[in-house]
Amino acid sequence: MALTTWVHVPEGSAFGVHSLPYGVFSHGDEDPRIGVAIGSYVLDLAPLAASEWADFASVFTAPTLNPFLGLGRQAWHAVRQWITERLTDESYRALVEPELLPLDQVRLHMPFEVADYVDFYASEHHAANLGRLFRPDEPPLPPNWKHLPVGYHGRAGTVSVSGTPLVRPCGQRKAPDDAAPTFGPSARLDYEVEVGFVVGTPTRLGQRVSVDQVRDHVFGVVLVNDWSARDLQVWETRPLGPFLGKSFLTSISPWVVPLEALEAAMIDPPAQDPRPLPYLAGKDNFGLDVDLEVRLNGQVIARPRYSEMYWTPAQMLAHLTVNGAALRTGDLFASGTVSGPEPAAYGSLIELTSAGAEPLTLADGTTRAFLHDGDQVTISATAPGPDGTRIGLGEVTGTVCPCLPASPPT
Amino acid sequence: MALTTWVHVPEGSAFGVHSLPYGVFSHGDEDPRIGVAIGSYVLDLAPLAASEWADFASVFTAPTLNPFLGLGRQAWHAVRQWITERLTDESYRALVEPELLPLDQVRLHMPFEVADYVDFYASEHHAANLGRLFRPDEPPLPPNWKHLPVGYHGRAGTVSVSGTPLVRPCGQRKAPDDAAPTFGPSARLDYEVEVGFVVGTPTRLGQRVSVDQVRDHVFGVVLVNDWSARDLQVWETRPLGPFLGKSFLTSISPWVVPLEALEAAMIDPPAQDPRPLPYLAGKDNFGLDVDLEVRLNGQVIARPRYSEMYWTPAQMLAHLTVNGAALRTGDLFASGTVSGPEPAAYGSLIELTSAGAEPLTLADGTTRAFLHDGDQVTISATAPGPDGTRIGLGEVTGTVCPCLPASPPT
Repeated sequence: MALTTWVHVPEGSAFGVHSLPYGVFSHGDEDPRIGVAIGSYVLDLAPLAASEWADFASVFTAPTLNPFLGLGRQAWHAVRQWITERLTDESYRALVEPELLPLDQVRLHMPFEVADYVDFYASEHHAANLGRLFRPDEPPLPPNWKHLPVGYHGRAGTVSVSGTPLVRPCGQRKAPDDAAPTFGPSARLDYEVEVGFVVGTPTRLGQRVSVDQVRDHVFGVVLVNDWSARDLQVWETRPLGPFLGKSFLTSISPWVVPLEALEAAMIDPPAQDPRPLPYLAGKDNFGLDVDLEVRLNGQVIARPRYSEMYWTPAQMLAHLTVNGAALRTGDLFASGTVSGPEPAAYGSLIELTSAGAEPLTLADGTTRAFLHDGDQVTISATAPGPDGTRIGLGEVTGTVCPCLPASPPT
Repeated sequence: MALTTWVHVPEGSAFGVHSLPYGVFSHGDEDPRIGVAIGSYVLDLAPLAASEWADFASVFTAPTLNPFLGLGRQAWHAVRQWITERLTDESYRALVEPELLPLDQVRLHMPFEVADYVDFYASEHHAANLGRLFRPDEPPLPPNWKHLPVGYHGRAGTVSVSGTPLVRPCGQRKAPDDAAPTFGPSARLDYEVEVGFVVGTPTRLGQRVSVDQVRDHVFGVVLVNDWSARDLQVWETRPLGPFLGKSFLTSISPWVVPLEALEAAMIDPPAQDPRPLPYLAGKDNFGLDVDLEVRLNGQVIARPRYSEMYWTPAQMLAHLTVNGAALRTGDLFASGTVSGPEPAAYGSLIELTSAGAEPLTLADGTTRAFLHDGDQVTISATAPGPDGTRIGLGEVTGTVCPCLPASPPT
């Protein structure tokens, strides 16, 4: 049943009472700490816990969500219930209202410390689109693609909060007709629209997580922009995969939406043929009905749908751990680019422009094969909530800055 | 000039007074803390610092080297001088001797917390050997290989200290003639002999490290066994690179040998043709004269030489950061398998056995195409020290255990 809150939630706000995402904020000179977004406010959890639930006070004064994430599913559920009650029962208003800070008066920080970052490649349409562009002489999907969720490790240390400037990376690139590689700023800078999953409960080395255990380990969801330098990527990628073409920056939304807020968004994934091996099957094998939107300098240029992703987050996690690889609190795994079958649902410029061959014309008359300096890319998303409501997932944004000169020798 | 120490260093000990590697140890029920190995002892740095150099006491009571690594090159040098003086000047003996604990009475722990882990592919012989085995229809080296140090990110969370049992990983594998992939324990389990470089001084996002700045950022060296499940790896690897075939465990030696101890081992690398782009060139572009040894169940099966590696650690670091990717204290980058041109210098079983086609016959008459349960692999190394002395780099060891059953649903 849809709940109502005594907090004023403006029409169109991403964060109604069914969302309640967690983030890290600071106010003035105070230390960063944990908050929950509601309407145009952030609820300052530490003082509320100090007066009502002292066990949690230290968890909420931490500068990252990691200690809270490490508490596990029962604690996540209990805290969400506690917050929901205080925001829906008018009798708590006098207690809670002083702890609501206007969002426009706080600074948002990286919500959690990333342990390992894994990026999957779970959209059939994206994988096939890139296969056609990068490997035109082969079948669009690699032979393994429908048997396992293809993934690789990315750079955890450059996963950064929304708003972090994207410094255009320099590196080596070589077009097929060039005699030798050259060095310089990437000329084929791209975004990738992704959804990321944040691990709370760790595992021991050698322990597998089954598809049906995903809710015990995954706390919630962030939006991800997996910025990509296509010219660097295509030259470096054989045989060990993407490296510098991706490692310069990955941006995530500042608010982590709990999996529990997305119950109404859990749907059957598209049919999988061939049937996956048993370790990739289970009843909790959920797809997610999340609608994404990409804006370039404010103009909507695509609306990818997560509901069409071939591999589910539960399958990704089961695959990631089937070899006994341990999970740590703060592990982040992302879906890979979310793309649909038609251009209006493509999740990257390389797909929208056929690798730059057919530039996009924007409303201001300018064209884009790839991103220009000064371009701002913003990804936002919503999902079904209870009783016809919508759950906002917030947004992740970033603006391209020119390549930096090399630092002087020390 | 070669120094002498008042500590009794047994003949053949890895750790004489020119080595002085750092590690994390615990004694009985006491908390893990920082020590330096000398002969058959570990020097307990915290109490020594408490009595002599209080500024450092808290750094040495930490359970990881990270706080010390973060202090930077000047501090690393000053602390090494301080320790060297106390171990070579007999007048310090009464002060220092009580802080020497026999190595066989302490437990060694993971020496530092790994931030990001990057694995390179810097041996021309290894890359060509694997190219011939994996891609027989193509030239042995990929087109980019002599232009940049090929690398990729590995799983930081499963980098573990020497002695951690290697649980045989399960996963998907498909031989070329199989109709469909199957699931089960890896049947082609391998080791890879590598040298790893530990980053101390971090950088900001967007900052490049030049070849000549490597000593400002890299603290020291560990030995690495990059365990590999070849059947998982070969099926999963296209198009995004190795993932589960590597992520189950990476073992490192417990002692981090400072770069400063390896001055006499720094040599010119092999000639590089074509000449690398300017960002990969510099005067501090050192190769390392390190002799490695691999023992399988006690029997020496190969002696790879690091001196033949094509790309140097300085070039690897310059490449890793040229796109502006930030470094963090605790970043680990490894060389990739160290292999020479002849089988006696191959750094993996897949090379020694031609991908299993020509099994190795051991002294006990048994054969190995790949590793069996119960097999123990130990990698050790030495390098030139001052005046004809040898610097030990210690060893990294691990024993293969059978695949674990899936954990029950929670």
